[in-house]
Amino acid sequence: MTGSYTTGFRGLTFHDALPRFRDGTDTPRAYLERCLETIAAREPQVKAFAALNPEGARAAADASTARWQAGAPLSPIDGMPMGIKDLLETKDMPTQMGCDAYAGNFPKRDNAAVVALRQAGAVILGKTVTAEIGGAHPGPTTNPWNAAHTPGGSSSGSAAAVAAGFVPAAIGTQVGGSIIRPAAYCGNVALKPTQGGINRGERMATSMSTHGPHANSLEDMWAVAIEIAARAGGDRGGIGLQGPRATPEAVKPQRLILMEGEGWAGLDAASKAAFEALLERLASAGVQVLRRGDHPAIERFEAGIASARAVCGGITSWENRWNTRNLVDNCPEGVSQRAKNVLAAAEKMLPEDYYARLSQRDEAQGRHVRLAPLADAVISLSCPGPAPVWEGDVPGQPLAPRPTGDFVFNAPSSMLFAPVVTVPLLAVGGLPVGVQLMGQQHQDARMVGLARWLLGALAPATA
Amino acid sequence: MTGSYTTGFRGLTFHDALPRFRDGTDTPRAYLERCLETIAAREPQVKAFAALNPEGARAAADASTARWQAGAPLSPIDGMPMGIKDLLETKDMPTQMGCDAYAGNFPKRDNAAVVALRQAGAVILGKTVTAEIGGAHPGPTTNPWNAAHTPGGSSSGSAAAVAAGFVPAAIGTQVGGSIIRPAAYCGNVALKPTQGGINRGERMATSMSTHGPHANSLEDMWAVAIEIAARAGGDRGGIGLQGPRATPEAVKPQRLILMEGEGWAGLDAASKAAFEALLERLASAGVQVLRRGDHPAIERFEAGIASARAVCGGITSWENRWNTRNLVDNCPEGVSQRAKNVLAAAEKMLPEDYYARLSQRDEAQGRHVRLAPLADAVISLSCPGPAPVWEGDVPGQPLAPRPTGDFVFNAPSSMLFAPVVTVPLLAVGGLPVGVQLMGQQHQDARMVGLARWLLGALAPATA
Repeated sequence: MTGSYTTGFRGLTFHDALPRFRDGTDTPRAYLERCLETIAAREPQVKAFAALNPEGARAAADASTARWQAGAPLSPIDGMPMGIKDLLETKDMPTQMGCDAYAGNFPKRDNAAVVALRQAGAVILGKTVTAEIGGAHPGPTTNPWNAAHTPGGSSSGSAAAVAAGFVPAAIGTQVGGSIIRPAAYCGNVALKPTQGGINRGERMATSMSTHGPHANSLEDMWAVAIEIAARAGGDRGGIGLQGPRATPEAVKPQRLILMEGEGWAGLDAASKAAFEALLERLASAGVQVLRRGDHPAIERFEAGIASARAVCGGITSWENRWNTRNLVDNCPEGVSQRAKNVLAAAEKMLPEDYYARLSQRDEAQGRHVRLAPLADAVISLSCPGPAPVWEGDVPGQPLAPRPTGDFVFNAPSSMLFAPVVTVPLLAVGGLPVGVQLMGQQHQDARMVGLARWLLGALAPATA
Repeated sequence: MTGSYTTGFRGLTFHDALPRFRDGTDTPRAYLERCLETIAAREPQVKAFAALNPEGARAAADASTARWQAGAPLSPIDGMPMGIKDLLETKDMPTQMGCDAYAGNFPKRDNAAVVALRQAGAVILGKTVTAEIGGAHPGPTTNPWNAAHTPGGSSSGSAAAVAAGFVPAAIGTQVGGSIIRPAAYCGNVALKPTQGGINRGERMATSMSTHGPHANSLEDMWAVAIEIAARAGGDRGGIGLQGPRATPEAVKPQRLILMEGEGWAGLDAASKAAFEALLERLASAGVQVLRRGDHPAIERFEAGIASARAVCGGITSWENRWNTRNLVDNCPEGVSQRAKNVLAAAEKMLPEDYYARLSQRDEAQGRHVRLAPLADAVISLSCPGPAPVWEGDVPGQPLAPRPTGDFVFNAPSSMLFAPVVTVPLLAVGGLPVGVQLMGQQHQDARMVGLARWLLGALAPATA
């Protein structure tokens, strides 16, 4: 299977099934069975799941069916089958984190966001494959649009499960680029919330990690996010995701700022052409697109994020070093050489090196704030072109540095703590490529509204 | 044993042994053996330790001895026997958190601060008793000055181990009052750092928890704190404890602000008399003490902290609810009724209730900042009088609400994220009572300097 993606593809959604749940012509249990049939057909190639709990899901779907039939659903996601990235603890499935050192790890606890999903009636169907402990070392998942290509990472299974129609939505997590890039490579919509927007529960070790939903529609994406935040709030110490319970209305932007970042110069010609075609459509629709030279604040912003990958990588590897060291000490063969290389670099850092990275992050956040008066949002590619080919490490060869793709277009929003919505508005070489809108902190709902306008008003661009 | 504490008591210290380590008239191994002898004599009554690792400690002390003899110690705490509160993971001892649901929990991992202590050469001798999961339900530890009285909590074992001369320093943790209160009840000095000042490692679940050292001297206390921060930094996302590697020099304050808080009105007469006598000695020494009526900003500050216990309790119980729920679900008999009561209240909260508490905390922090121009620090009692009697729950009777004492004088600094140093400058009824200095965020080293001046310049007060 190659080159099968065309723009305008409509994946499996849930929100539009609700009227049929209400009138009894469909049920959450029947919906789940259709998901399980799709999984049976395609999972052997896609390999999106690290664990599946069909019987637990059936019981939950039956309970949901009874609620809908009684006219008393718990929320608009009551009955929604979901995948949970295998970094988050779930009480009914193991949490193995794509890492042999966690093989068999089964703490029988629910992450705070998972608790909230269950309280809202969601059906927790499976754990989705993550790149090892959320890093660069890939799991077995393939891209549903072309199995020779990576699905991206580290939320590989969440992105692929949504693209393959296994579930209408799945939870991913991002520290550098782990939600938005795989979503963009697989043709999902996805939200990387403002830092702290969704309660991470036990996963509080790093300063710029977020939970976020992957879906095939903005409606499902938003519903998952806001229903979690309404029950579990945000990270400790901060205000969680705010906004309407219904999907934010479409809002036409007046002005957008094009972010080039570290990725623009090296972008392939086809992806750049497709994206420029989309920008022309924006201009034709009356949206002004500001570029680097148009205002000094934009140039200063670009300078602030010019080392975004190094800043994100340095901060996160420092924050993870104690956990990784404990893993390696306890199970030396259970941790990949890629992760060991990251650890070795982190263990050479001093606190002062870390603080210097934090200062760069602070400075960049200040420069981002100063863009607020100029435009409604920042727009850029969500990934540097379509998903690259990945067919595994070659014994005897040096390790490929980024087998799940490059987070070059994702590191800025991570270090800025900024909300991002990615939408699948481009197709390049028969694979999806995402476009992202990035807002000021806590403008998550507004980004969803802008994204909704883009999806409704712009014809996708193909190259 | 009752009423044995007198002011001026000199406990076991480490910093003054260094010259003898250097000249070979003493060794860390011999120092450790003396600690073990003291433990053998008094631990059956004090019950400070949840686990001891004498053989591991002896090996570490021998390695330290070799380094001192080679003239190459790793730090000024190389060879220091230490206790680690049993909430923090240590790879060589279980981490049972004073909670039956964690019985046998032995993850074989080191907390980031423990890694740093080992890197500095410290000798990790034992895990010290904590009240159950850092809350109010007490462990078996008794107050070394009178076994009928609580040592305070939740860092019960750390405070008692230092007071009993088992170790010269121990790590405690504070979310509401869990370092400063037990230190004050046991006659320790202790530092509750600025929020985030010392890397909490895996213990990042709550927004106002800190690690801090208990000791019998400011020199040992400061050395432990700064040697950790120099290696492991602060919590992710922030700048850790800053200051000189040597103990900050004594600094005489010009003005101090008396904090009354929620505890002043109900204070017993003897404790108030002893504290007022100390304040008179301050005045005699030329230090101006400002009180509520002296400036409107002080009155506004007092109003901002007037519900400090409720603010701290609400925030922390919300932040802990998912973990406690998982514990109770997995092991219903393994969690105390006290903790279950806290959980039940937390599970009635909505995110908006939590956000309201955060707003109160933010507002109080702003009012504290506005005290900065008025004085060098805030001064208050560290605890509401001497440690209360505690001899266990009585079957059939209602649960005592605060068996480890009241955190009424500690909640303000916790919610303000403010550094506090407590010093044992009072004796009331034959038990120690602490006095605390609280500074603006990141003024930890300055508070140590002020505390050093107080200890050197003021005669303790007895009532």
